[in-house]
Amino acid sequence: MEDIEFLERVVKRVMSSGILGNPKDLRNHSKVTEFVDPEDLKRKLDLEILDEPASNEELLGLCEDVMRYSVKTGHPMFLNQLYHGLDGYCVAGAWLTDVLNTSQSTYEISPVFTVMETFVIRHIINNFIGWDDGEGIFSPGGSVANMYAMFVARHKALPDVKTKGLRGFPQLVAFVSEDGHYSTTKTANWLGIGTDNLVIIKVDDRGRMVPEDLDRSCKEAKQQGKLPFYVCATAGSTVLGSFDPLHQIADICQKHDLWFHVDAAWGGTVLLSRSHRHLMDGVNRADSVTWDFHKMPGLSLYCSVFLTKWTGMLYECNSSCAEYLFQEDKHYDGAYDTGEKSVQCGRKVDVLKLYLAWRGRGQIGMEQLVNHAFNMAQYFFEKIKHTKGFKLVLPEFTNICFWYVPPSLQGKEHTPDFWDQLSTIAPKLKEKMTKQGTMMIAYQPLSSKSFPNFFRLIVHCLPSLSKEDMDFIVTELQRLAEDL
Amino acid sequence: MEDIEFLERVVKRVMSSGILGNPKDLRNHSKVTEFVDPEDLKRKLDLEILDEPASNEELLGLCEDVMRYSVKTGHPMFLNQLYHGLDGYCVAGAWLTDVLNTSQSTYEISPVFTVMETFVIRHIINNFIGWDDGEGIFSPGGSVANMYAMFVARHKALPDVKTKGLRGFPQLVAFVSEDGHYSTTKTANWLGIGTDNLVIIKVDDRGRMVPEDLDRSCKEAKQQGKLPFYVCATAGSTVLGSFDPLHQIADICQKHDLWFHVDAAWGGTVLLSRSHRHLMDGVNRADSVTWDFHKMPGLSLYCSVFLTKWTGMLYECNSSCAEYLFQEDKHYDGAYDTGEKSVQCGRKVDVLKLYLAWRGRGQIGMEQLVNHAFNMAQYFFEKIKHTKGFKLVLPEFTNICFWYVPPSLQGKEHTPDFWDQLSTIAPKLKEKMTKQGTMMIAYQPLSSKSFPNFFRLIVHCLPSLSKEDMDFIVTELQRLAEDL
Repeated sequence: MEDIEFLERVVKRVMSSGILGNPKDLRNHSKVTEFVDPEDLKRKLDLEILDEPASNEELLGLCEDVMRYSVKTGHPMFLNQLYHGLDGYCVAGAWLTDVLNTSQSTYEISPVFTVMETFVIRHIINNFIGWDDGEGIFSPGGSVANMYAMFVARHKALPDVKTKGLRGFPQLVAFVSEDGHYSTTKTANWLGIGTDNLVIIKVDDRGRMVPEDLDRSCKEAKQQGKLPFYVCATAGSTVLGSFDPLHQIADICQKHDLWFHVDAAWGGTVLLSRSHRHLMDGVNRADSVTWDFHKMPGLSLYCSVFLTKWTGMLYECNSSCAEYLFQEDKHYDGAYDTGEKSVQCGRKVDVLKLYLAWRGRGQIGMEQLVNHAFNMAQYFFEKIKHTKGFKLVLPEFTNICFWYVPPSLQGKEHTPDFWDQLSTIAPKLKEKMTKQGTMMIAYQPLSSKSFPNFFRLIVHCLPSLSKEDMDFIVTELQRLAEDL
Repeated sequence: MEDIEFLERVVKRVMSSGILGNPKDLRNHSKVTEFVDPEDLKRKLDLEILDEPASNEELLGLCEDVMRYSVKTGHPMFLNQLYHGLDGYCVAGAWLTDVLNTSQSTYEISPVFTVMETFVIRHIINNFIGWDDGEGIFSPGGSVANMYAMFVARHKALPDVKTKGLRGFPQLVAFVSEDGHYSTTKTANWLGIGTDNLVIIKVDDRGRMVPEDLDRSCKEAKQQGKLPFYVCATAGSTVLGSFDPLHQIADICQKHDLWFHVDAAWGGTVLLSRSHRHLMDGVNRADSVTWDFHKMPGLSLYCSVFLTKWTGMLYECNSSCAEYLFQEDKHYDGAYDTGEKSVQCGRKVDVLKLYLAWRGRGQIGMEQLVNHAFNMAQYFFEKIKHTKGFKLVLPEFTNICFWYVPPSLQGKEHTPDFWDQLSTIAPKLKEKMTKQGTMMIAYQPLSSKSFPNFFRLIVHCLPSLSKEDMDFIVTELQRLAEDL
């Protein structure tokens, strides 16, 4: 059992590595990233697969390299993405899932997880979304969950497309805001609707969909003889963290008979907090919702749910009656099998991670995590408002978007090439912070607002995140920008 | 750090549970499954999520229940599905992946895994598929990989569908055999082609696609003014384990200008063995291939690759230029980022599991695993050929398909209701074996052959699987059927 001995040694190494320990220790002792250029990294890693087995020593050496050159996403200074790690309850759930290695397709092979998934989805629907009825499925990421949404909506609008295809039917038209996630574009492509038939709705100065423009665009599509069928509203946009006005969008969906999807992949977690759930007022009027627990709450990928209030729709859309899996003469009620609701066949278990974290922290603990993230974001926002060099884009949700104006550009705000020059600063600062490994913050331009490159700092549900951490970000940015 | 303490205790418990130990011990000391009816299981599990945190003691008790009532898919008598567990190298890879929790979207956040995925895909393409060039992507399961295939093929046939949608174009027609996997049906639905436009091609007496019927069906579709574009051949069919004749299908694809996809989700692993790779002769002529390493080789879900010889196609189909992820002014070459090739945005790392198993066993070790599985299947086949009560359907690959005729039906093969009665036996036997938990073997009818319920026993790459195990299956079936 060489492989089991290897596993034991890897576990020992991981547990002592600090990656899983106190994030404060991680900050004191480890970089966020030890960046190496791709070609250099290829040379450093000895990846050749040989005929002969590698010894456990060699493999452990390789694992050391894997750990060394991987980004420490559980590090408090990993502020770069909408996901981060690491919740110990979640890791326990992930590890147990890995060894119990099964698929959610049937109750027979996944009894506990079938019951647990159904329970958790019902818990979310009843207590957080606010539907009386409904169903859902864990999916491999928010993009796929959003694809479920448009797919189910397409089926509801034109059920015969399942058998006949799109060709003979009116042109379907979908809507999403300028700041909506790009998965809606991918979905329009995959589902055969075409990206030209995804109408991009304007956003207001805070990045929220403008309902009047949605209404106007629907009318326009109808006038062109097309069939509007689907709106994807965004709760927590990727860059600015904006929440679309759900009630107003729901009204328009009702008026035009459109499927109302809320992409709350990023923002859904506000529903866990009584203080902040108002941001998603109106979500109970949605036909479907995407919510990624692997984003803000810090659970590991994937932990994404697709929810719809239309019980039975997932089965109706997806069932294909595979007789080798869904036999009609089972010795238990085959209605418990979830496989026919899914586009996948083998479907890895994602629910245990969420379940253990939720039970382990309790509802109160989860709420505290969310409130703490909001507080830290607020602290940071207040701080940079009064700090030289910081120029705020928007403070929405826990996305803090700002430009950093280095000393060399300070006071030159009104010179003609100020913005062009400022746009080069974020990439340069990003390169420096990445190469020094002290922190990681994403930057990007934003076409919808013609904004040149700015930073988007993401505050997550990390219980240990402190004001000192937030202060550090400020001084570290100042330090890195000194000579720019 | 309550959560980390909990994790440590879960690890200790898992390591001492026997689930990860020697499969022989698992067989001696543990059932494959401890089956409980769904409603009873709901009552046994105390799932309520409370406001207050659960103690680690409570959570550990819950984890005990999770382990107890979950199917032991690493048990040698788990012969039920196309996947099984557990390779210790793979578990180490899975666990390390979970703690390094990142996404494959960009090199910046996933440097090691980007390099490793590219390396492994190149290794597979060059050394096992036989293309000079090509690219690929790990996808969450074989069904999604097969969806990539039809999607890429659709794009190659009609690139403007990406922007304009399917509506204005000729009706696309795809082909798969009667015994092909149902994911192709789901895909025809999702991609907007329609399941009626998926033409089902006949299989021969061994379950292999009949090339003449494919040729005829293509001509027919063309005569109807439709546009045939895609053939999904199967290498290792789900039930019978048949391999379609790839060279003959390739000829027809060439003749009619069709995309030639090989769904080798189950069978691809034969390519690891010099003795058995001939089953897939002609795969080098395919345009794309699906290969699930989480099936036969016993790696944990997901470990599925989609491969295509058309380098650049995945980007061309999928890119949507999300400016917040794929900035044009990165400090490294953005061509290393794989996110634009994928339908997903966050994409969990799957490559490390495969990589460690492959390195840890060496190419020779992997080959031995495959040969051993074939040998055990052959042993079992020879054995039941001469054992009263066993009636062979087909011995293909490592799928052993057979009816078991219980004593009460033996000698009545020529009575009018023999087949009707025999059809009730597999469900009854399955119920008994599941409830006693001694083994799990799938059963199903097979419409393509009008076969009533029969067993499909799957032999996996399990190094410890022995002749004694195979003998046990025979005597256990006899014991369970005694009074039927």
